[in-house]
Amino acid sequence: MQNKVLVVGSVALDDVETPFGRRDNALGGSAIYFSLAASCFARVQLVGVAGQDYPPQALALLHRKKIDIEGLNIVPGETFRWGGKYHTDMNHRDTLYTYLNVFADFKPTIPERYRQTPFIFLGNIQPSLQLEVLRQMQAPQFVALDTMNLWINTARSELMEVIRQVHLLMINDSELFELTNQRHLLSALSELHHTGPRIIVIKKGEHGALLSYYKKDRNPVRNLFYAPVYPVRQATDPTGAGDSFAGGFLGYLTACSRISFRALKKATLYGSIMGSFVVEGFGVDGLLKLNATKIDQRYRLLRRMVALK
Amino acid sequence: MQNKVLVVGSVALDDVETPFGRRDNALGGSAIYFSLAASCFARVQLVGVAGQDYPPQALALLHRKKIDIEGLNIVPGETFRWGGKYHTDMNHRDTLYTYLNVFADFKPTIPERYRQTPFIFLGNIQPSLQLEVLRQMQAPQFVALDTMNLWINTARSELMEVIRQVHLLMINDSELFELTNQRHLLSALSELHHTGPRIIVIKKGEHGALLSYYKKDRNPVRNLFYAPVYPVRQATDPTGAGDSFAGGFLGYLTACSRISFRALKKATLYGSIMGSFVVEGFGVDGLLKLNATKIDQRYRLLRRMVALK
Repeated sequence: MQNKVLVVGSVALDDVETPFGRRDNALGGSAIYFSLAASCFARVQLVGVAGQDYPPQALALLHRKKIDIEGLNIVPGETFRWGGKYHTDMNHRDTLYTYLNVFADFKPTIPERYRQTPFIFLGNIQPSLQLEVLRQMQAPQFVALDTMNLWINTARSELMEVIRQVHLLMINDSELFELTNQRHLLSALSELHHTGPRIIVIKKGEHGALLSYYKKDRNPVRNLFYAPVYPVRQATDPTGAGDSFAGGFLGYLTACSRISFRALKKATLYGSIMGSFVVEGFGVDGLLKLNATKIDQRYRLLRRMVALK
Repeated sequence: MQNKVLVVGSVALDDVETPFGRRDNALGGSAIYFSLAASCFARVQLVGVAGQDYPPQALALLHRKKIDIEGLNIVPGETFRWGGKYHTDMNHRDTLYTYLNVFADFKPTIPERYRQTPFIFLGNIQPSLQLEVLRQMQAPQFVALDTMNLWINTARSELMEVIRQVHLLMINDSELFELTNQRHLLSALSELHHTGPRIIVIKKGEHGALLSYYKKDRNPVRNLFYAPVYPVRQATDPTGAGDSFAGGFLGYLTACSRISFRALKKATLYGSIMGSFVVEGFGVDGLLKLNATKIDQRYRLLRRMVALK
């Protein structure tokens, strides 16, 4: 049986402005970006909530991508809505508004059929909800966690509780340092590995991603793998890059027969590539016309960017 | 005959404070960092100016490293002095003072014996002085140029004149965009390659370095090589990282029999490694106790950081 990956996260409609234009009512939310990216590699089960305004075409799209949406609850009210505007350099953005709407009362209920799913991605939601998901899963083999500084600052003890239970933590540079009170990369990684996750992926946005796969008594530099970003001709909208990275990463890993350091390295590269596709278009557009050939072409070019020969 | 590399740049005494301590009267200046890093690979000829307060131990050190200092003029007055303080994250610093002193009247005169030297590094000084150096050189085979936003803003036409004459330009991300008015990496590189230098190295500080080696009619991504940074246990003082990178890069290249894309890639890795050594100590300390074994050990670990196997 083909392995499946379950994702829990936000489902949103976004109004986004970048130096290259604007788009209203774009499909967004971590669960949506993750699902579309991961669906290029594996079967995805989506757990989330949307309002009755959620466009039927979006549901049709997810269906077409063979994403299982039994876990997507459509409830009375409006869908989570986020409005944001990116600065000229696109490394910074202002959040114009966040209307949680139906997402405010989100209590993830895992459909019976999903509870044996071995791969799990806990998207960036409240740590207490992430714990709630883990309690319902019956045979987790590999759990990956995303989080953000908001939870580090407001729900630290619940967050640490989740971190202790996961195999992989995705985090960015500054969150790594906030979480550990260390000032240097290697010591921060070491401290965090000791609290639980054997695998840490540091997302560096336009500067790539760093994988750390903890093995005791090894020179810590030998635990590291670095994936550059694929240089796109035009980055249009960075929204969803991190979740698409996670989707490529975990989608690839779900399709692997064995989780080795080598498989994790390749997963990091595929994550980077899915991030590069999504930033080329507004919202999820960059993820919609992909196929194995396009993905593998970028993979080979990315490999070449670090090859001596 | 062993190839030599000539460097023209600043010779300074620095007062530096970082979150890890402070150091007064530290040896500094682009020509000093470059020379010490490059001397691990090739013979270096230094052109610069210092005051009569320049410490004799510094001259003895350069001599010990077999750096040719006939071109270092010691003149009446005080040495260029820079005072700086790094912020907690060490990615930003405040300049507390800059006393040009004898550097204000620096007019580089290339000793007769240096004029046939094939490899040349034009450190970050006024573009008009860089042009003056080039006019005196009789057989340049490979000229590398460093610059900064100050010259982009205040001496743009002279700077463009230098850029047209060099083989390699070292620049950082934001300077690349200021110089070209492009918003995307590939188009900025393409525009800049067309103005002259076939080789561009984008220095990204803690995020590594990107080499672009222009070949027409090739997918531009295939022109790129990315070197990550070597993750040090403790970064103590970032001063001089860029110039040490340049020293490692050009020192290695000077020792190569042929300038191929492969040689340039390896040069980028050696540049990154020399940058990693220098940030571990205050001032030039990190460059003083190196040998081929230590350098090659880091080289192998850095290669491993991007290797799949």
